[in-house]
Amino acid sequence: MRPKIYLFGDSITEGSFQEGGWGASLTNHFARTADVVLRGYSGYNTRWALKALDTVFPATETSGDSGANDNSSPIAVTVFFGANDACLPDRYASFQHVPLQEYKQNLHSIVSFLKKKWPKTHVLLITPPPIDEEGRLRHPFCKNPQGLVERTYEASGEYARACISVAGECGIPVVDLWNKMQQNPDWENACLSDGLHLAKSGNRVVFEEVISKLKDVGVLPEALPVDLPLLADIDPNDPLKSFQK
Amino acid sequence: MRPKIYLFGDSITEGSFQEGGWGASLTNHFARTADVVLRGYSGYNTRWALKALDTVFPATETSGDSGANDNSSPIAVTVFFGANDACLPDRYASFQHVPLQEYKQNLHSIVSFLKKKWPKTHVLLITPPPIDEEGRLRHPFCKNPQGLVERTYEASGEYARACISVAGECGIPVVDLWNKMQQNPDWENACLSDGLHLAKSGNRVVFEEVISKLKDVGVLPEALPVDLPLLADIDPNDPLKSFQK
Repeated sequence: MRPKIYLFGDSITEGSFQEGGWGASLTNHFARTADVVLRGYSGYNTRWALKALDTVFPATETSGDSGANDNSSPIAVTVFFGANDACLPDRYASFQHVPLQEYKQNLHSIVSFLKKKWPKTHVLLITPPPIDEEGRLRHPFCKNPQGLVERTYEASGEYARACISVAGECGIPVVDLWNKMQQNPDWENACLSDGLHLAKSGNRVVFEEVISKLKDVGVLPEALPVDLPLLADIDPNDPLKSFQK
Repeated sequence: MRPKIYLFGDSITEGSFQEGGWGASLTNHFARTADVVLRGYSGYNTRWALKALDTVFPATETSGDSGANDNSSPIAVTVFFGANDACLPDRYASFQHVPLQEYKQNLHSIVSFLKKKWPKTHVLLITPPPIDEEGRLRHPFCKNPQGLVERTYEASGEYARACISVAGECGIPVVDLWNKMQQNPDWENACLSDGLHLAKSGNRVVFEEVISKLKDVGVLPEALPVDLPLLADIDPNDPLKSFQK
Protein backbone atom coordinates (compact mmCIF):
# COMPACT_ATOMS: atom_id res chain seq x y z
CA MET A 1 0.00 0.00 0.00
CA ARG A 2 1.27 3.40 -0.96
CA PRO A 3 1.83 6.03 1.71
CA LYS A 4 -0.48 9.01 1.78
CA ILE A 5 0.04 12.75 1.83
CA TYR A 6 -2.99 14.63 3.17
CA LEU A 7 -3.70 18.20 2.13
CA PHE A 8 -5.75 19.78 4.92
CA GLY A 9 -6.86 23.37 4.56
CA ASP A 10 -9.39 25.90 3.31
CA SER A 11 -10.44 26.90 -0.22
CA ILE A 12 -6.82 27.34 -1.30
CA THR A 13 -6.46 23.63 -0.62
CA GLU A 14 -9.92 22.62 -1.89
CA GLY A 15 -9.18 24.38 -5.18
CA SER A 16 -5.71 22.89 -5.55
CA PHE A 17 -6.79 20.49 -8.32
CA GLN A 18 -8.10 23.22 -10.59
CA GLU A 19 -6.02 23.80 -13.71
CA GLY A 20 -2.39 24.27 -12.73
CA GLY A 21 -3.20 23.67 -9.07
CA TRP A 22 -0.53 22.79 -6.53
CA GLY A 23 -2.37 19.67 -5.31
CA ALA A 24 -2.53 18.25 -8.82
CA SER A 25 1.16 19.03 -9.34
CA LEU A 26 1.96 17.24 -6.10
CA THR A 27 -0.05 14.19 -7.20
CA ASN A 28 1.83 14.18 -10.49
CA HIS A 29 5.15 14.54 -8.66
CA PHE A 30 4.41 11.49 -6.50
CA ALA A 31 2.48 9.65 -9.27
CA ARG A 32 4.14 6.26 -8.69
CA THR A 33 5.06 6.55 -5.02
CA ALA A 34 2.43 8.25 -2.83
CA ASP A 35 -1.27 9.04 -2.81
CA VAL A 36 -2.20 12.67 -2.34
CA VAL A 37 -5.50 12.97 -0.48
CA LEU A 38 -7.51 16.18 -0.76
CA ARG A 39 -9.10 17.46 2.44
CA GLY A 40 -9.80 21.09 1.59
CA TYR A 41 -12.82 22.91 3.04
CA SER A 42 -13.75 26.25 1.50
CA GLY A 43 -14.27 29.06 3.95
CA TYR A 44 -12.98 27.17 6.96
CA ASN A 45 -10.90 28.80 9.66
CA THR A 46 -8.90 26.99 12.35
CA ARG A 47 -11.84 27.11 14.77
CA TRP A 48 -14.00 25.12 12.39
CA ALA A 49 -11.05 22.93 11.39
CA LEU A 50 -10.66 21.87 15.02
CA LYS A 51 -14.31 20.80 15.11
CA ALA A 52 -13.79 18.90 11.86
CA LEU A 53 -10.63 17.01 12.83
CA ASP A 54 -12.28 13.77 13.95
CA THR A 55 -14.21 13.59 10.68
CA VAL A 56 -11.32 14.56 8.44
CA PHE A 57 -8.98 12.05 10.07
CA PRO A 58 -11.32 9.35 11.38
CA ALA A 59 -10.22 6.77 13.91
CA THR A 60 -10.67 3.88 11.49
CA GLU A 61 -7.86 5.20 9.34
CA THR A 62 -5.43 5.69 12.24
CA SER A 63 -2.74 3.29 13.26
CA GLY A 64 -3.17 3.97 16.95
CA ASP A 65 -5.12 0.88 17.89
CA SER A 66 -2.90 -1.60 16.12
CA GLY A 67 0.85 -1.59 15.97
CA ALA A 68 0.71 -3.89 12.98
CA ASN A 69 -1.13 -1.28 10.98
CA ASP A 70 1.66 1.28 10.91
CA ASN A 71 1.51 1.53 7.12
CA SER A 72 -1.64 3.56 7.40
CA SER A 73 0.20 6.52 8.90
CA PRO A 74 0.49 9.13 6.19
CA ILE A 75 4.01 10.27 5.41
CA ALA A 76 2.96 13.91 5.49
CA VAL A 77 0.08 16.28 6.17
CA THR A 78 0.01 19.87 4.97
CA VAL A 79 -1.94 22.22 7.26
CA PHE A 80 -2.86 25.39 5.41
CA PHE A 81 -5.17 27.75 7.32
CA GLY A 82 -5.16 31.42 8.21
CA ALA A 83 -6.58 33.25 5.21
CA ASN A 84 -10.08 33.06 6.71
CA ASP A 85 -9.02 33.51 10.33
CA ALA A 86 -7.50 36.82 9.19
CA CYS A 87 -10.83 38.22 7.99
CA LEU A 88 -11.44 41.50 9.79
CA PRO A 89 -13.91 41.32 12.72
CA ASP A 90 -15.89 44.35 11.54
CA ARG A 91 -16.29 43.61 7.84
CA TYR A 92 -18.64 41.42 5.81
CA ALA A 93 -16.76 38.17 6.41
CA SER A 94 -16.51 38.69 10.15
CA PHE A 95 -18.14 35.32 10.87
CA GLN A 96 -14.96 33.68 9.58
CA HIS A 97 -12.66 35.79 11.79
CA VAL A 98 -10.61 34.11 14.51
CA PRO A 99 -8.50 36.28 16.85
CA LEU A 100 -4.75 35.98 16.39
CA GLN A 101 -4.05 34.30 19.73
CA GLU A 102 -6.81 31.76 19.22
CA TYR A 103 -5.48 31.08 15.70
CA LYS A 104 -2.11 30.21 17.21
CA GLN A 105 -3.70 27.98 19.85
CA ASN A 106 -5.84 26.26 17.24
CA LEU A 107 -2.85 25.57 15.01
CA HIS A 108 -1.06 24.11 18.04
CA SER A 109 -4.08 21.89 18.73
CA ILE A 110 -4.24 20.68 15.11
CA VAL A 111 -0.53 19.85 15.10
CA SER A 112 -0.84 18.07 18.47
CA PHE A 113 -3.81 16.04 17.25
CA LEU A 114 -1.89 14.87 14.18
CA LYS A 115 1.35 14.20 16.05
CA LYS A 116 -0.45 12.23 18.76
CA LYS A 117 -2.28 10.18 16.14
CA TRP A 118 0.71 9.66 13.86
CA PRO A 119 4.01 10.36 15.68
CA LYS A 120 6.15 9.68 12.60
CA THR A 121 4.12 11.76 10.16
CA HIS A 122 5.66 14.98 8.89
CA VAL A 123 3.29 17.86 9.57
CA LEU A 124 3.98 20.86 7.35
CA LEU A 125 2.41 24.24 8.06
CA ILE A 126 1.78 26.70 5.24
CA THR A 127 1.20 30.38 6.00
CA PRO A 128 -1.67 32.26 4.39
CA PRO A 129 -0.72 34.14 1.22
CA PRO A 130 -0.41 37.92 1.17
CA ILE A 131 -3.67 39.70 0.37
CA ASP A 132 -3.96 42.04 -2.58
CA GLU A 133 -6.58 44.48 -1.33
CA GLU A 134 -7.35 45.93 -4.75
CA GLY A 135 -8.04 42.43 -6.03
CA ARG A 136 -10.35 41.78 -3.09
CA LEU A 137 -12.34 44.93 -3.82
CA ARG A 138 -12.73 43.87 -7.45
CA HIS A 139 -13.80 40.33 -6.44
CA PRO A 140 -15.88 40.43 -3.23
CA PHE A 141 -17.54 37.14 -2.27
CA CYS A 142 -20.90 38.82 -1.77
CA LYS A 143 -22.53 42.24 -1.75
CA ASN A 144 -20.13 44.69 -0.15
CA PRO A 145 -22.07 47.93 0.41
CA GLN A 146 -19.36 49.29 2.71
CA GLY A 147 -16.90 49.16 -0.18
CA LEU A 148 -14.21 48.09 2.29
CA VAL A 149 -11.97 45.02 2.02
CA GLU A 150 -12.94 42.09 4.24
CA ARG A 151 -9.30 41.14 4.76
CA THR A 152 -6.09 43.14 4.51
CA TYR A 153 -2.49 42.74 3.48
CA GLU A 154 -1.41 43.76 6.98
CA ALA A 155 -3.60 41.21 8.78
CA SER A 156 -2.52 38.39 6.47
CA GLY A 157 1.08 39.20 7.42
CA GLU A 158 0.29 39.01 11.14
CA TYR A 159 -1.33 35.59 10.74
CA ALA A 160 1.52 34.40 8.55
CA ARG A 161 4.06 35.38 11.19
CA ALA A 162 1.96 33.68 13.85
CA CYS A 163 1.90 30.51 11.76
CA ILE A 164 5.68 30.60 11.45
CA SER A 165 6.10 31.04 15.18
CA VAL A 166 3.80 28.04 15.86
CA ALA A 167 5.95 25.93 13.53
CA GLY A 168 9.01 27.01 15.47
CA GLU A 169 7.38 26.21 18.82
CA CYS A 170 6.35 22.77 17.52
CA GLY A 171 9.68 22.11 15.82
CA ILE A 172 8.04 21.38 12.47
CA PRO A 173 8.67 22.76 8.98
CA VAL A 174 6.72 25.67 7.53
CA VAL A 175 6.27 27.17 4.09
CA ASP A 176 6.51 30.94 4.43
CA LEU A 177 4.17 31.53 1.53
CA TRP A 178 3.51 35.10 2.58
CA ASN A 179 7.10 36.14 1.95
CA LYS A 180 7.95 33.69 -0.83
CA MET A 181 5.09 34.88 -2.98
CA GLN A 182 6.14 38.50 -2.64
CA GLN A 183 9.51 37.72 -4.18
CA ASN A 184 7.60 37.94 -7.46
CA PRO A 185 7.46 41.70 -8.20
CA ASP A 186 4.06 41.23 -9.84
CA TRP A 187 2.70 38.87 -7.15
CA GLU A 188 -0.68 40.62 -7.02
CA ASN A 189 -1.48 39.62 -10.60
CA ALA A 190 0.85 36.71 -11.31
CA CYS A 191 0.22 34.78 -8.09
CA LEU A 192 -3.36 35.67 -7.17
CA SER A 193 -6.58 35.50 -9.17
CA ASP A 194 -8.86 37.58 -6.92
CA GLY A 195 -6.54 39.05 -4.33
CA LEU A 196 -6.76 35.86 -2.23
CA HIS A 197 -6.86 32.64 -4.26
CA LEU A 198 -3.98 31.31 -6.28
CA ALA A 199 -3.27 32.00 -9.93
CA LYS A 200 -0.74 30.02 -11.95
CA SER A 201 2.45 31.45 -10.46
CA GLY A 202 1.03 31.27 -6.95
CA ASN A 203 0.26 27.59 -7.38
CA ARG A 204 3.77 27.09 -8.67
CA VAL A 205 5.25 28.75 -5.56
CA VAL A 206 3.20 26.55 -3.22
CA PHE A 207 4.11 23.39 -5.14
CA GLU A 208 7.82 24.21 -5.28
CA GLU A 209 7.95 25.16 -1.60
CA VAL A 210 6.00 22.11 -0.44
CA ILE A 211 8.19 19.63 -2.34
CA SER A 212 11.28 21.47 -1.13
CA LYS A 213 10.23 21.24 2.53
CA LEU A 214 9.19 17.61 2.10
CA LYS A 215 12.55 16.86 0.50
CA ASP A 216 14.28 18.45 3.50
CA VAL A 217 12.68 15.83 5.74
CA GLY A 218 13.42 12.97 3.33
CA VAL A 219 10.05 12.76 1.59
CA LEU A 220 10.75 12.68 -2.15
CA PRO A 221 9.76 10.27 -4.94
CA GLU A 222 13.27 8.89 -5.27
CA ALA A 223 13.31 7.89 -1.60
CA LEU A 224 10.00 6.01 -1.76
CA PRO A 225 9.54 2.50 -3.12
CA VAL A 226 7.64 1.95 -6.37
CA ASP A 227 5.06 -0.79 -6.14
CA LEU A 228 5.50 -1.97 -9.73
CA PRO A 229 8.38 -1.85 -12.22
CA LEU A 230 9.05 1.33 -14.13
CA LEU A 231 9.07 1.02 -17.92
CA ALA A 232 12.78 1.82 -18.02
CA ASP A 233 13.45 -1.19 -15.75
CA ILE A 234 11.50 -3.66 -17.85
CA ASP A 235 13.61 -5.89 -20.10
CA PRO A 236 12.26 -5.54 -23.67
CA ASN A 237 13.44 -9.08 -24.39
CA ASP A 238 11.57 -10.58 -21.43
CA PRO A 239 9.08 -8.08 -20.02
CA LEU A 240 7.25 -10.54 -17.76
CA LYS A 241 10.45 -11.31 -15.85
CA SER A 242 9.97 -8.00 -14.03
CA PHE A 243 6.62 -9.16 -12.72
CA GLN A 244 7.84 -12.37 -11.09
CA LYS A 245 7.74 -12.00 -7.34
CA MET B 1 -14.77 7.72 5.05
CA ARG B 2 -15.09 8.99 1.53
CA PRO B 3 -15.60 6.57 -1.33
CA LYS B 4 -12.79 6.13 -3.81
CA ILE B 5 -12.54 6.29 -7.58
CA TYR B 6 -9.51 4.42 -8.92
CA LEU B 7 -7.89 5.40 -12.20
CA PHE B 8 -6.14 2.30 -13.56
CA GLY B 9 -4.29 2.54 -16.81
CA ASP B 10 -1.10 3.31 -18.71
CA SER B 11 0.79 6.58 -19.25
CA ILE B 12 -2.37 8.39 -20.30
CA THR B 13 -3.60 7.69 -16.79
CA GLU B 14 -0.24 8.19 -15.06
CA GLY B 15 0.05 11.62 -16.67
CA SER B 16 -3.51 12.63 -15.87
CA PHE B 17 -2.43 15.05 -13.13
CA GLN B 18 -0.18 17.07 -15.38
CA GLU B 19 -1.45 20.58 -16.13
CA GLY B 20 -5.03 20.39 -17.37
CA GLY B 21 -5.07 16.62 -16.88
CA TRP B 22 -8.32 14.66 -16.70
CA GLY B 23 -7.42 12.99 -13.39
CA ALA B 24 -6.87 16.35 -11.72
CA SER B 25 -10.16 17.63 -13.17
CA LEU B 26 -11.91 14.57 -11.79
CA THR B 27 -10.40 15.15 -8.34
CA ASN B 28 -11.57 18.75 -8.48
CA HIS B 29 -15.03 17.64 -9.60
CA PHE B 30 -15.36 15.31 -6.60
CA ALA B 31 -13.36 17.55 -4.25
CA ARG B 32 -15.74 17.23 -1.30
CA THR B 33 -17.28 13.85 -2.00
CA ALA B 34 -14.84 11.21 -3.31
CA ASP B 35 -11.13 10.45 -3.37
CA VAL B 36 -9.60 9.91 -6.78
CA VAL B 37 -6.72 7.43 -6.56
CA LEU B 38 -4.09 7.38 -9.29
CA ARG B 39 -2.91 3.98 -10.46
CA GLY B 40 -1.33 4.77 -13.81
CA TYR B 41 1.65 2.79 -15.12
CA SER B 42 3.51 4.20 -18.09
CA GLY B 43 4.11 1.78 -20.93
CA TYR B 44 1.91 -0.97 -19.52
CA ASN B 45 -0.29 -3.12 -21.71
CA THR B 46 -3.09 -5.41 -20.51
CA ARG B 47 -0.72 -8.39 -20.23
CA TRP B 48 1.43 -6.55 -17.69
CA ALA B 49 -1.65 -5.03 -16.06
CA LEU B 50 -2.96 -8.52 -15.35
CA LYS B 51 0.30 -9.39 -13.60
CA ALA B 52 0.05 -6.17 -11.62
CA LEU B 53 -3.56 -6.52 -10.44
CA ASP B 54 -2.83 -8.04 -7.02
CA THR B 55 -0.40 -5.25 -6.26
CA VAL B 56 -2.53 -2.44 -7.62
CA PHE B 57 -5.60 -3.63 -5.72
CA PRO B 58 -4.16 -5.45 -2.71
CA ALA B 59 -6.23 -7.79 -0.58
CA THR B 60 -5.88 -5.58 2.50
CA GLU B 61 -7.91 -2.88 0.83
CA THR B 62 -10.72 -5.19 -0.25
CA SER B 63 -13.96 -5.68 1.54
CA GLY B 64 -14.08 -9.39 0.81
CA ASP B 65 -12.97 -10.71 4.15
CA SER B 66 -15.29 -8.59 6.25
CA GLY B 67 -18.86 -7.71 5.55
CA ALA B 68 -18.57 -4.83 7.98
CA ASN B 69 -15.93 -3.22 5.85
CA ASP B 70 -18.10 -2.57 2.81
CA ASN B 71 -17.20 1.10 2.79
CA SER B 72 -13.84 0.25 1.36
CA SER B 73 -15.32 -0.78 -1.99
CA PRO B 74 -14.54 2.00 -4.43
CA ILE B 75 -17.55 3.53 -6.17
CA ALA B 76 -15.79 3.33 -9.51
CA VAL B 77 -12.69 2.16 -11.33
CA THR B 78 -11.66 3.42 -14.75
CA VAL B 79 -9.75 0.86 -16.84
CA PHE B 80 -7.87 2.57 -19.63
CA PHE B 81 -5.55 0.30 -21.62
CA GLY B 82 -4.97 -0.47 -25.27
CA ALA B 83 -2.66 2.24 -26.58
CA ASN B 84 0.38 0.05 -25.83
CA ASP B 85 -1.26 -3.26 -26.72
CA ALA B 86 -1.83 -1.74 -30.17
CA CYS B 87 1.90 -1.21 -30.81
CA LEU B 88 2.79 -3.01 -34.03
CA PRO B 89 4.56 -6.37 -33.58
CA ASP B 90 7.31 -5.53 -36.10
CA ARG B 91 8.28 -2.03 -35.04
CA TYR B 92 10.49 -0.59 -32.29
CA ALA B 93 7.87 -0.86 -29.51
CA SER B 94 7.02 -4.48 -30.34
CA PHE B 95 7.76 -5.61 -26.77
CA GLN B 96 4.62 -3.74 -25.71
CA HIS B 97 2.42 -5.37 -28.37
CA VAL B 98 -0.42 -7.67 -27.30
CA PRO B 99 -2.46 -9.46 -30.00
CA LEU B 100 -6.02 -8.26 -30.39
CA GLN B 101 -7.69 -11.42 -29.11
CA GLU B 102 -5.46 -11.57 -26.06
CA TYR B 103 -6.19 -7.87 -25.42
CA LYS B 104 -9.89 -8.70 -25.30
CA GLN B 105 -9.35 -11.66 -23.00
CA ASN B 106 -7.12 -9.59 -20.73
CA LEU B 107 -9.71 -6.82 -20.48
CA HIS B 108 -12.30 -9.47 -19.61
CA SER B 109 -9.99 -10.79 -16.90
CA ILE B 110 -9.39 -7.34 -15.43
CA VAL B 111 -13.11 -6.60 -15.33
CA SER B 112 -13.83 -10.01 -13.77
CA PHE B 113 -11.16 -9.47 -11.13
CA LEU B 114 -12.65 -6.12 -10.14
CA LYS B 115 -16.26 -7.31 -10.24
CA LYS B 116 -15.43 -10.37 -8.14
CA LYS B 117 -13.59 -8.24 -5.59
CA TRP B 118 -16.14 -5.43 -5.52
CA PRO B 119 -19.51 -6.50 -6.96
CA LYS B 120 -21.11 -3.08 -6.48
CA THR B 121 -18.27 -1.06 -7.96
CA HIS B 122 -18.85 0.59 -11.33
CA VAL B 123 -16.11 -0.47 -13.74
CA LEU B 124 -15.75 1.93 -16.66
CA LEU B 125 -13.68 1.02 -19.70
CA ILE B 126 -12.02 3.72 -21.80
CA THR B 127 -10.87 2.97 -25.34
CA PRO B 128 -7.42 4.00 -26.52
CA PRO B 129 -7.33 7.37 -28.32
CA PRO B 130 -6.86 7.58 -32.07
CA ILE B 131 -3.21 7.75 -33.12
CA ASP B 132 -1.87 10.65 -35.16
CA GLU B 133 0.89 8.96 -37.12
CA GLU B 134 2.59 12.18 -38.16
CA GLY B 135 2.77 13.19 -34.52
CA ARG B 136 4.31 9.83 -33.63
CA LEU B 137 7.00 10.22 -36.29
CA ARG B 138 7.87 13.66 -34.92
CA HIS B 139 7.97 12.38 -31.33
CA PRO B 140 9.35 8.81 -31.23
CA PHE B 141 10.11 7.44 -27.77
CA CYS B 142 13.57 6.30 -28.79
CA LYS B 143 15.81 6.02 -31.83
CA ASN B 144 13.71 5.04 -34.81
CA PRO B 145 16.12 4.19 -37.63
CA GLN B 146 13.35 2.53 -39.65
CA GLY B 147 11.52 5.84 -39.79
CA LEU B 148 8.24 3.95 -39.43
CA VAL B 149 5.53 4.59 -36.85
CA GLU B 150 5.44 2.13 -33.94
CA ARG B 151 1.64 2.34 -33.75
CA THR B 152 -0.98 3.33 -36.31
CA TYR B 153 -4.32 5.04 -36.55
CA GLU B 154 -5.82 1.87 -37.98
CA ALA B 155 -4.58 -0.43 -35.20
CA SER B 156 -5.76 1.99 -32.50
CA GLY B 157 -9.22 1.80 -34.05
CA GLU B 158 -9.23 -2.00 -33.97
CA TYR B 159 -8.30 -2.05 -30.28
CA ALA B 160 -10.85 0.67 -29.52
CA ARG B 161 -13.62 -1.38 -31.17
CA ALA B 162 -12.45 -4.47 -29.27
CA CYS B 163 -12.65 -2.52 -26.01
CA ILE B 164 -16.19 -1.44 -26.80
CA SER B 165 -17.21 -5.00 -27.57
CA VAL B 166 -15.76 -6.23 -24.26
CA ALA B 167 -17.79 -3.57 -22.43
CA GLY B 168 -20.88 -4.82 -24.22
CA GLU B 169 -20.13 -8.43 -23.35
CA CYS B 170 -19.59 -7.49 -19.70
CA GLY B 171 -22.57 -5.16 -19.57
CA ILE B 172 -20.53 -2.24 -18.30
CA PRO B 173 -20.16 1.35 -19.53
CA VAL B 174 -17.42 2.45 -21.89
CA VAL B 175 -16.02 5.77 -23.04
CA ASP B 176 -15.55 5.61 -26.81
CA LEU B 177 -12.62 7.98 -26.72
CA TRP B 178 -11.46 6.93 -30.17
CA ASN B 179 -14.58 8.30 -31.84
CA LYS B 180 -15.35 11.14 -29.40
CA MET B 181 -11.96 12.70 -29.87
CA GLN B 182 -12.28 12.67 -33.65
CA GLN B 183 -15.37 14.85 -33.40
CA ASN B 184 -12.86 17.67 -33.03
CA PRO B 185 -11.82 18.46 -36.64
CA ASP B 186 -8.33 19.36 -35.40
CA TRP B 187 -8.02 16.40 -33.01
CA GLU B 188 -4.45 15.62 -34.09
CA ASN B 189 -3.19 18.93 -32.71
CA ALA B 190 -5.88 20.01 -30.26
CA CYS B 191 -6.30 16.68 -28.47
CA LEU B 192 -2.86 15.08 -28.72
CA SER B 193 0.59 16.37 -27.79
CA ASP B 194 2.75 13.77 -29.54
CA GLY B 195 0.32 11.74 -31.61
CA LEU B 196 -0.53 9.56 -28.59
CA HIS B 197 -0.68 11.43 -25.28
CA LEU B 198 -3.32 13.95 -24.40
CA ALA B 199 -3.14 17.68 -24.95
CA LYS B 200 -5.57 20.13 -23.37
CA SER B 201 -8.64 19.35 -25.48
CA GLY B 202 -8.01 15.63 -25.28
CA ASN B 203 -7.92 15.80 -21.50
CA ARG B 204 -11.15 17.75 -21.59
CA VAL B 205 -12.84 15.06 -23.72
CA VAL B 206 -11.77 12.28 -21.34
CA PHE B 207 -12.92 14.26 -18.29
CA GLU B 208 -16.29 15.17 -19.79
CA GLU B 209 -16.93 11.63 -21.01
CA VAL B 210 -15.91 10.01 -17.73
CA ILE B 211 -18.14 12.24 -15.59
CA SER B 212 -20.98 11.74 -18.08
CA LYS B 213 -20.71 7.93 -17.89
CA LEU B 214 -20.38 8.05 -14.11
CA LYS B 215 -23.43 10.27 -13.92
CA ASP B 216 -25.37 7.74 -16.02
CA VAL B 217 -24.80 5.14 -13.30
CA GLY B 218 -25.63 7.56 -10.48
CA VAL B 219 -22.11 8.57 -9.50
CA LEU B 220 -22.05 12.36 -9.28
CA PRO B 221 -21.04 14.82 -6.55
CA GLU B 222 -24.64 15.84 -5.86
CA ALA B 223 -25.59 12.21 -5.14
CA LEU B 224 -22.78 11.64 -2.65
CA PRO B 225 -22.79 12.78 0.97
CA VAL B 226 -20.43 15.54 2.08
CA ASP B 227 -18.54 14.71 5.25
CA LEU B 228 -18.53 18.27 6.56
CA PRO B 229 -20.79 21.31 6.06
CA LEU B 230 -20.42 23.41 2.95
CA LEU B 231 -19.76 27.10 3.52
CA ALA B 232 -23.13 27.97 2.02
CA ASP B 233 -24.82 25.82 4.67
CA ILE B 234 -23.05 27.40 7.63
CA ASP B 235 -25.10 29.98 9.55
CA PRO B 236 -23.03 33.18 9.72
CA ASN B 237 -24.75 34.04 12.99
CA ASP B 238 -23.83 30.72 14.62
CA PRO B 239 -21.21 28.90 12.57
CA LEU B 240 -20.39 26.26 15.18
CA LYS B 241 -23.97 25.02 15.18
CA SER B 242 -23.20 23.23 11.91
CA PHE B 243 -20.48 21.22 13.59
CA GLN B 244 -22.63 19.79 16.37
CA LYS B 245 -23.17 16.10 15.82
